[in-house]
Amino acid sequence: MGKVTIDMSMSLDGFVTGPNDGPGQELGEGGMQLHEWIFGLAGWRKRHGLEGGETGPNDDIVEEAFTDVGAVVMGRRMFELGEEPWGDDPPFHAPVFVVTHRAREPLEREGGTTFTFVTDGVESALDQAKKAAGDKNVSIAGGAETAQQLVGAGLVDEIQFHVAPLLLGGGKRLFEELGTQVQLETTRVIDSPGVTHLRFRVVK
Amino acid sequence: MGKVTIDMSMSLDGFVTGPNDGPGQELGEGGMQLHEWIFGLAGWRKRHGLEGGETGPNDDIVEEAFTDVGAVVMGRRMFELGEEPWGDDPPFHAPVFVVTHRAREPLEREGGTTFTFVTDGVESALDQAKKAAGDKNVSIAGGAETAQQLVGAGLVDEIQFHVAPLLLGGGKRLFEELGTQVQLETTRVIDSPGVTHLRFRVVK
Repeated sequence: MGKVTIDMSMSLDGFVTGPNDGPGQELGEGGMQLHEWIFGLAGWRKRHGLEGGETGPNDDIVEEAFTDVGAVVMGRRMFELGEEPWGDDPPFHAPVFVVTHRAREPLEREGGTTFTFVTDGVESALDQAKKAAGDKNVSIAGGAETAQQLVGAGLVDEIQFHVAPLLLGGGKRLFEELGTQVQLETTRVIDSPGVTHLRFRVVK
Repeated sequence: MGKVTIDMSMSLDGFVTGPNDGPGQELGEGGMQLHEWIFGLAGWRKRHGLEGGETGPNDDIVEEAFTDVGAVVMGRRMFELGEEPWGDDPPFHAPVFVVTHRAREPLEREGGTTFTFVTDGVESALDQAKKAAGDKNVSIAGGAETAQQLVGAGLVDEIQFHVAPLLLGGGKRLFEELGTQVQLETTRVIDSPGVTHLRFRVVK
């Protein structure tokens, strides 16, 4: 049985998108900087149909995440913002379960990505993702509300943050106001130029 | 000339105090956990008039901070909450400049701590602290408003966070909504059991 994981880039002040996110600016003002560490990496480029790129510790972390993930859960807004930019061959290459209120037929894309729309709640989406993932992990891709709900319900096993060295000053936080205290155990710290990878196990 | 530094313990969700802070619960609910890594250390105990304690990488970081700091700036609320618990021999052992609207005679305590009350703004408090610190650093002790104002004004050189492995779920953040973007450069990452020390230079 795999783990349920959250794996996100954030600024030192805790934002996962910059201010004023929306169509055409999916990551908000300045939000693209959170992901700068990833764009040049071989593993990331491969998943986006591009050749070449850097290898090394950062790339190992990206490869590890892609290899271990068997299914993905995301919120409706993230899907709606992403659908167009992700194009015909979205970077998930796995079944994706979208939490939404609006029923819709599954959407099959190239490269192994299928979007299934789940209308009976985030926990049902997680259950379906777990079945689809088998022995692999389920990754909670966001947005913030979906991730927060699952952490609050004690359903997440591991949190990894890629901390980008900047203050975004505004935007969306992953854990804006969780409303409950959660104990963690640090399981890995990797310091690379331009990003620090912090991984935690949720203590239950 | 020394640096202007911020050096704080925070939770992974960015809180420097837990919810409902106030007299008798200066760090808010659960907030004491942010500082658990420090209480057993020799350097911390020494400044609080206690003998013994652990040495090692965490203690080196505490010693370094105490040794390098020549003066402190803090906000009124932090002073008011701390005045009683800090007692006759406060842990600063350096001149402290309190930003307030209410004029008051300087307060001299044992062990080298003097509180000077500055009524003409946070930048004036910083200038006075710089003069008092000479070649040493000025530490911005908090609260959040004071720290945010100085970072926003581009007057802070270095930020160090001691990240405690927990989500506090609520409370006060150091950088709630800075409103401006600030580039940083990671200058040191030290991973210790129970805490990860992240240090950044502010890029100006």
